[in-house]
Amino acid sequence: MRDLAGHGEQVFGYTRSRSATRAAQKDGFDVSSDLAQTLTRAAESDALLVVAVPMDAVSGVFDAIAEHAGHCGITDVVSVKKPVYDLVRAHGFQARYVGGHPMAGTENSGWGASHEGLFHRAAWAVTYDFAYELDAAGEAVPESWSRLFTNVCALAALTGAEAVPVSVARHDEAVARVSHLPHVIAEALAIVGDHGGTLAQSLAAGSFKGATRVAGTDPSLVRNMCETNADALVPVLDEYIALLSSARDGLSGENPSMQELAEAGNRSYVRIGARSGARRESVSPVKISSRPVMRVHPGGPGWVAQLKQIEALGGRVEVF
Amino acid sequence: MRDLAGHGEQVFGYTRSRSATRAAQKDGFDVSSDLAQTLTRAAESDALLVVAVPMDAVSGVFDAIAEHAGHCGITDVVSVKKPVYDLVRAHGFQARYVGGHPMAGTENSGWGASHEGLFHRAAWAVTYDFAYELDAAGEAVPESWSRLFTNVCALAALTGAEAVPVSVARHDEAVARVSHLPHVIAEALAIVGDHGGTLAQSLAAGSFKGATRVAGTDPSLVRNMCETNADALVPVLDEYIALLSSARDGLSGENPSMQELAEAGNRSYVRIGARSGARRESVSPVKISSRPVMRVHPGGPGWVAQLKQIEALGGRVEVF
Repeated sequence: MRDLAGHGEQVFGYTRSRSATRAAQKDGFDVSSDLAQTLTRAAESDALLVVAVPMDAVSGVFDAIAEHAGHCGITDVVSVKKPVYDLVRAHGFQARYVGGHPMAGTENSGWGASHEGLFHRAAWAVTYDFAYELDAAGEAVPESWSRLFTNVCALAALTGAEAVPVSVARHDEAVARVSHLPHVIAEALAIVGDHGGTLAQSLAAGSFKGATRVAGTDPSLVRNMCETNADALVPVLDEYIALLSSARDGLSGENPSMQELAEAGNRSYVRIGARSGARRESVSPVKISSRPVMRVHPGGPGWVAQLKQIEALGGRVEVF
Repeated sequence: MRDLAGHGEQVFGYTRSRSATRAAQKDGFDVSSDLAQTLTRAAESDALLVVAVPMDAVSGVFDAIAEHAGHCGITDVVSVKKPVYDLVRAHGFQARYVGGHPMAGTENSGWGASHEGLFHRAAWAVTYDFAYELDAAGEAVPESWSRLFTNVCALAALTGAEAVPVSVARHDEAVARVSHLPHVIAEALAIVGDHGGTLAQSLAAGSFKGATRVAGTDPSLVRNMCETNADALVPVLDEYIALLSSARDGLSGENPSMQELAEAGNRSYVRIGARSGARRESVSPVKISSRPVMRVHPGGPGWVAQLKQIEALGGRVEVF
């Protein structure tokens, strides 16, 4: 809301929290705590609906949308996509839904934890399963859906984020690796550090702080993410535990060795870091994103195939 | 060296790296690549020797100290303390050694990665096993050792760090929890993220970046830390893997639940964070450290018992 208003877009919202309603109103935002009224107003102005609630509240919001805003386009910012898409199907929303997930945030939540520019240069995952499935079946993607896809990419761009097209299943597997696993890691590390008592806490420094920061997240939000993405997260956890167990075995022998993990881990770190090098190394004064860009005209010939290509690269899409 | 020189202390050094020697000399520092000569000079000026090399190089440096600087006080900044103390005993250095470990740094190493103020407000572990053992046996601590302890605390204070007295064994167990485990975690997470390919890397954000940063550390340094502290690290890794495995089992059931880990992890995070609250909440304009302070006069009556008390609290010592 802050970013959109900052760009002069008309934006209004609903939250069930009365304190958040008051806080947002105090900052000059058009926020209500009446869901039905807000949705009716959205339907009248043909607004794009952005569902930004924890996973366990999505179903109820979708019910209200079906009742009060029968024709508006829908996107969301929930951190898992398959469970949301299951509800999209259950509500028959496929033709009016494009999923979203901005990959930025802090360990804090609520209106007071938001600020303009929070999503600057972040990836904003944008799902396109509806188009993918139609395209695979040789059917045309409705023009209304292409327009909605364009709008969702434009929404991301207004916040300064970079739209990364991705299928629901690949999204959930990727975020299990790079977001949900780090949350699980942080919770467990906080406990192990805490077990060391005040001495261990006194000696904790940057490596501990960096790896535990997201344990400050409201545990109900962490549960929501991890539990609803359990299908993707469990095999990733198995992969992770196997690496740790192997390191543990190497360290418990007569000649402790952690050579394999230390060298492979550093290689992975360097490989990942190399992608962000472009920003520093560019001779252009223009800051270059590490994500390759592809310009796509939604609805144009071959555009769904273009999205698949960008997805495979983890690239970003610019609509025109 | 940067901090000490910044405070007008006379400081000179040796490094086996010729490029680091040149870089430090270029910055105006008195650095040589001749170890024997540097140690002879240290002996002549009765300097305090600060051994700042990876664990696997300590033995060779101690041999050279025995040969060229037979009477200087010795401290070190190695990230494990028991293996160093074993070498201290083997060289008969106990009465002239006080161990150290400043808990700050970055994932980078070498002269270029250092800067004045790097240790500001960091904990600087200072070991006192020699005094502890004499005290337990009812024997007096030699005055020369008390003076050395004072000097090492003063060295830490000159860098802006806070001296935390700790026994070798408790140090190694604490850093296994809050430093070496985070390094193991970072290596394994970098690998799991890398396995997600460019898409997962594109979607990675703060939680991944924070938890993998130290995988950028030179793998030989990580191996040195973890392998030489394997005795303390293996049980900590077992504790950590057990937490992850339990969360994994909770997530793989029919009704996936991560309640226990998410809530316990957040409680630990809050408990640890509460200690640093003092700095923000103080009504005094003076910034207050989260580490309780105790003023100690080394050599004074009951001073070793006072160190034990501070150690139990993870507090800091100020010598006077």
